[in-house]
Amino acid sequence: MDMNAAQPEAGSPERAPRVPRTERGRRTQRAILDAAAAEFGEKGFHESSIVSITIRAGVALGSFYTYFESKEALFKALVQDMSARVRDHVAPVLAERPRPGVEAEGAALGAFLVFAREHKEIYRIIDEAEFVAPEDWRAHYLNTARRIEERLTAAYGRGELAVRPDEVHAWAIMGMNVFLGLRFGVMDGDADLADVAAKANALLKNGLG
Amino acid sequence: MDMNAAQPEAGSPERAPRVPRTERGRRTQRAILDAAAAEFGEKGFHESSIVSITIRAGVALGSFYTYFESKEALFKALVQDMSARVRDHVAPVLAERPRPGVEAEGAALGAFLVFAREHKEIYRIIDEAEFVAPEDWRAHYLNTARRIEERLTAAYGRGELAVRPDEVHAWAIMGMNVFLGLRFGVMDGDADLADVAAKANALLKNGLG
Repeated sequence: MDMNAAQPEAGSPERAPRVPRTERGRRTQRAILDAAAAEFGEKGFHESSIVSITIRAGVALGSFYTYFESKEALFKALVQDMSARVRDHVAPVLAERPRPGVEAEGAALGAFLVFAREHKEIYRIIDEAEFVAPEDWRAHYLNTARRIEERLTAAYGRGELAVRPDEVHAWAIMGMNVFLGLRFGVMDGDADLADVAAKANALLKNGLG
Repeated sequence: MDMNAAQPEAGSPERAPRVPRTERGRRTQRAILDAAAAEFGEKGFHESSIVSITIRAGVALGSFYTYFESKEALFKALVQDMSARVRDHVAPVLAERPRPGVEAEGAALGAFLVFAREHKEIYRIIDEAEFVAPEDWRAHYLNTARRIEERLTAAYGRGELAVRPDEVHAWAIMGMNVFLGLRFGVMDGDADLADVAAKANALLKNGLG
């Protein structure tokens, strides 16, 4: 067995995708993941095929199996990749210009709405993961909510929030963000995303009452 | 063609389910829908079968085809039925004791959380509808958000809200509700749902800032 192969996850029947050792390998793996996002996003898991994904990616079928064991393993890897890309798209926006308390959540939402509009396929893929890769689907939401709760808790510690935050607030904010992304990022290509983020953030900050 | 048959929906290739003319017929159709909720919720659409659903329902296969044209038509009818049941579970709670402004949304959330815990299968069914019955999935969310927006707009007209509500607020609240139901109604069977609803409603009313 390749010593560079990542260890299988607890409880997972599939081997995790192999970590490429060369820049060329990383590019190939990236090309396969991008082609998979397009293919799964367009056709759904069941109608998608490895052959079609390798053609889209412009890589040989053998290269596919160097990195992924099966269509299921690729789908799992794609869900983890998209979850990480959402995180990595939002994090620099927050790091670049730290905002106090609830305003950081508005900036995070604004960044997420732009990401959702540019990567509409993420909804179909994450939503289908509930059925095709339920552990990864669950992990995506648990991790996302945990990051929100950590940000809120830090803001509360700095005296920037009036309410002690907990998991309820984190899941409420995540649900808001997911549905606003679906409605205004994916369904409606023309909505003013900055306006949507500002309204939602005013709701979070001051409420409607 | 039976004159009692409902007209097909625009754009839908399937005939809508036949409306039963007798109380016995209504009971049979209800038994099929309840068995379908259990079967689809447990096995998902693709692994579920009409034969197995009729056995669960205790009805003859012929009775199934009296009311539904196919497994797809049954699934569509079930999504519409669940969407209506959520609505009909929440509406009397609001009608029984009208609450001002944002508090009505807290009562609606509280009622929904109880419904979600008692009907955990609703999540799997509505979520799978994105792939199996996308028009009905979309209609469910558009209708639910419209009801929230109508309630908010009426409350604003009575001077009970500080902010003029629009579709952004309605989708934000719906997203909050859906994710709180998933986390605390479905994933966690022990959470104190009244506490969850109260925290989320305080967030809606006064914000965190």
